[in-house]
Amino acid sequence: MALQTKQAPAENAARVTPRAEDYSQWYLDVIKRGDLAEHSPVRGCMVIKPHGYAIWEKMQRELDDRFKATGHVNAYFPLFIPLSYLAKEEKHAAGFAKECAVVTHHRLKSVDGEVVVDPESKLEEPLIIRPTSETIIWAQYKNWIQSYRDLPLLINQWANVCRWELRPRLFLRTAEFLWQEGHTAHASEEEALEETHRMLDVYADFAENVAAVPVLRGRKTPGERFAGALDTLCIEGMMQDGRALQMGTSHYLGQNFAKSSDVQFLNREGALEYVYATSWGVSTRLIGALIMTHSDDTGLVLPPKLAPIHVVIVPIFRSPEEQARTCEEAAKVAAELSGQGLAVKVDDRDWIMPGAKFYEWETKGVPVRIEVGPKDLEKGSLCVARRFVIEQEGETEKDLRKRKKSFPPRAEAIKSIKPLLEAMQAELLERARLFREKRTRVIDTLEDFEQFFAGEGGFAWVHWAGDAEHEDEMATRFETSVRCLPFEDQLPEAARGEGQCILTCKPSAQRVVMAKAY
Amino acid sequence: MALQTKQAPAENAARVTPRAEDYSQWYLDVIKRGDLAEHSPVRGCMVIKPHGYAIWEKMQRELDDRFKATGHVNAYFPLFIPLSYLAKEEKHAAGFAKECAVVTHHRLKSVDGEVVVDPESKLEEPLIIRPTSETIIWAQYKNWIQSYRDLPLLINQWANVCRWELRPRLFLRTAEFLWQEGHTAHASEEEALEETHRMLDVYADFAENVAAVPVLRGRKTPGERFAGALDTLCIEGMMQDGRALQMGTSHYLGQNFAKSSDVQFLNREGALEYVYATSWGVSTRLIGALIMTHSDDTGLVLPPKLAPIHVVIVPIFRSPEEQARTCEEAAKVAAELSGQGLAVKVDDRDWIMPGAKFYEWETKGVPVRIEVGPKDLEKGSLCVARRFVIEQEGETEKDLRKRKKSFPPRAEAIKSIKPLLEAMQAELLERARLFREKRTRVIDTLEDFEQFFAGEGGFAWVHWAGDAEHEDEMATRFETSVRCLPFEDQLPEAARGEGQCILTCKPSAQRVVMAKAY
Repeated sequence: MALQTKQAPAENAARVTPRAEDYSQWYLDVIKRGDLAEHSPVRGCMVIKPHGYAIWEKMQRELDDRFKATGHVNAYFPLFIPLSYLAKEEKHAAGFAKECAVVTHHRLKSVDGEVVVDPESKLEEPLIIRPTSETIIWAQYKNWIQSYRDLPLLINQWANVCRWELRPRLFLRTAEFLWQEGHTAHASEEEALEETHRMLDVYADFAENVAAVPVLRGRKTPGERFAGALDTLCIEGMMQDGRALQMGTSHYLGQNFAKSSDVQFLNREGALEYVYATSWGVSTRLIGALIMTHSDDTGLVLPPKLAPIHVVIVPIFRSPEEQARTCEEAAKVAAELSGQGLAVKVDDRDWIMPGAKFYEWETKGVPVRIEVGPKDLEKGSLCVARRFVIEQEGETEKDLRKRKKSFPPRAEAIKSIKPLLEAMQAELLERARLFREKRTRVIDTLEDFEQFFAGEGGFAWVHWAGDAEHEDEMATRFETSVRCLPFEDQLPEAARGEGQCILTCKPSAQRVVMAKAY
Repeated sequence: MALQTKQAPAENAARVTPRAEDYSQWYLDVIKRGDLAEHSPVRGCMVIKPHGYAIWEKMQRELDDRFKATGHVNAYFPLFIPLSYLAKEEKHAAGFAKECAVVTHHRLKSVDGEVVVDPESKLEEPLIIRPTSETIIWAQYKNWIQSYRDLPLLINQWANVCRWELRPRLFLRTAEFLWQEGHTAHASEEEALEETHRMLDVYADFAENVAAVPVLRGRKTPGERFAGALDTLCIEGMMQDGRALQMGTSHYLGQNFAKSSDVQFLNREGALEYVYATSWGVSTRLIGALIMTHSDDTGLVLPPKLAPIHVVIVPIFRSPEEQARTCEEAAKVAAELSGQGLAVKVDDRDWIMPGAKFYEWETKGVPVRIEVGPKDLEKGSLCVARRFVIEQEGETEKDLRKRKKSFPPRAEAIKSIKPLLEAMQAELLERARLFREKRTRVIDTLEDFEQFFAGEGGFAWVHWAGDAEHEDEMATRFETSVRCLPFEDQLPEAARGEGQCILTCKPSAQRVVMAKAY
């Protein structure tokens, strides 16, 4: 057996481009080094690698538990949507029918040894790969809803969807992506609106208390609404480049889809009425948000609640005898921590040097590393290394490094891991909050606005009374958009009150948040 | 509030067609009354309704836990496969390229107010909706595997796949279905073969110990192999009409896909070698197996381990005062049972009569019902009704009904539910085993064979030495196929030993199982 004599492969040692040098490349490097995903040879499509998928599975579990706790059940509807269905709701069709995958044939055949599409297998009606499922689901709801006793219908679907993308970006924008889509039916506008807000709250709770990403809650302007919705609520996070990322949306659809699919119910008064609808979704884009909120120049940083591995244990040895002893201790420590419900990995590979292992697990975002060396065994202690500490003012690199490692007695170390993970989870949220605060301005003039976004930018609280055309103008001049009209409780003190639109100078009742966005 | 005065809607009271009258219709009725799934207007596609999907979720959890316990991780690969990829492995292409959904365009446009496929958006290369993912996954593995240290690669994917079906049948055969597909890469044939068998064992363990469906394990004949495999192992269950249902397959792919995708690795000796592969899958077809193994003329019967609801509690009342008292008690009983980890539903709807509720939950397969009436409250007892009991010889309808219900004291009842569910789980497996035994024959002549399958049929142990053409002949003459060449330990005493092929009279080393099949 080779005893940690070989170096790690050259590729593993390749560094992550620092954020300050090239933010876009940094993002791609974090994904690559973190072994999260990669582009597929199929244009615009992504392969989610096991480590990335494990994060998605943790997200799914957390979200699904919350959906079920709020009374929802899961179901599954077809991938294919007949072209005529998509065309039913006019605005919806205009919004989604543009770039989508169209199935036109159902058979291949061999011609002179070459496999080709059989022209005789042309479908009577083309099928669209679902870009979202309102039309196919509401066609089914028509059979499921007769009276108010059948309502509310609270259904969610975990699925893949497809929106053809000419400029794909891993996790943020790909032709195929994974998501969940809730589709609910209600007996009144009031109830449907309540649901729309409830699910936005579920998303915000997940974003802040699980993903440790602080989010603004609000509504989209009419121009940014989901195609076919009367109101679109959203949560918006701020990434480390100051750009906004829409992390989830919840739509009040009114009676639009009930009307286009003719879904009426007998209400309590015995009259026929169209059903009220909502839909809401989050996607694998959340992994992009996670990366861009927490990661650093070493690589991926994960909030412990979404880390597939909480603790990696690395035995350190130079002889077969040391190997036996440290690996035995590593296995024992692992068993004790697993017993606490933690996900633990022992990295006992003997063909990779400890330093390379440390680096590998750091780039993969594992929150805590425990090193077990012969000296630790002698002293009855363990070396506990945190993936990150929050930088304090005036702190040197050396101070930082020192704070990352501690050498508590064994029993104390074992007891300390769970509270440490909880503390790290809270620190990430707090760090992201402070970052967002630092990069948020209340702005009253176009001049200040321009300067802010010519500089590092971030979130700008501005008065706004423009329409879609004015939004286009701001996009053209500054690359900014109205991210949302935040709910009242989201406004900081300094942003409250009425004023004048920053562009049109018309009276404005409330400030909005403008930012550059993904 | 209406106090249980209305009848259940007429549709809910519609009976399930008895098996003896029309087995196919019985199957569809069980699905409909059980609220499991329905056909979608999209040709060949199925909508899995919440109750059906909840069963699939329980299956997924049980299977996924077993995959992870055997070292596998999940990942996600693209839905789209370029036509040229599918064509890479010759036999694979011949097997799967026939009936599949082909994406040829990526945009729609509006022409005179009508939405049509934009002819200018034609793809350079058509994309196939994956019928299975070997080709797209092995294209990726090429980048992931360099040396024996990267092996084994043990990856599973939960996904939707598409195989165009002209004669769809809910759960058994639909154009789109949900499944899992494991794709593993190994450094030696021995290891890959071991994996192929390990995963078949995982499936068999799930089938018998979770789904309570006894299965035969064996290998397929060359003609029935997965397209591109060197060996296909399978588990076969027997449905209540005596037909076989293939419930899961595990394939040894040799180096076929490694060669067609050029995936080589540096072995321990420093030489380049093609990687050895396996793939294995089960699908929502398992729900069909569940239905056809356990359900009865009342409707769905579920093994407790896969029941989304273990216990339904029905309060029984005739006055608002009784309603208040019985609903309170129902909630308390529910809380106590939930505390034991059971999934409990209180059905306190006051617009449906108790009898209709009993029937509804029976048709949905809930294993245990508890009735709470004013008399039960007085006596301090509960009425516990089992979904089924195993019929004993000479038992009358009345005896059966009597054995289904008991009236234990409250505390005893609460304690009895978990053991009762365990007993019911075991009884289902045992009943299915006895059924299979009763419908299995060791057959030596074509005459007996013909008679057996002209009658009620089942599994026939016959000596076989035919080739693919002979298999075709059996299919034409008797509608039967070789379900598998069972592993040695699967052979009953009476079926052991050598003999003569039932058709060709050539010497045969071992009997096979022939049956009509789904």
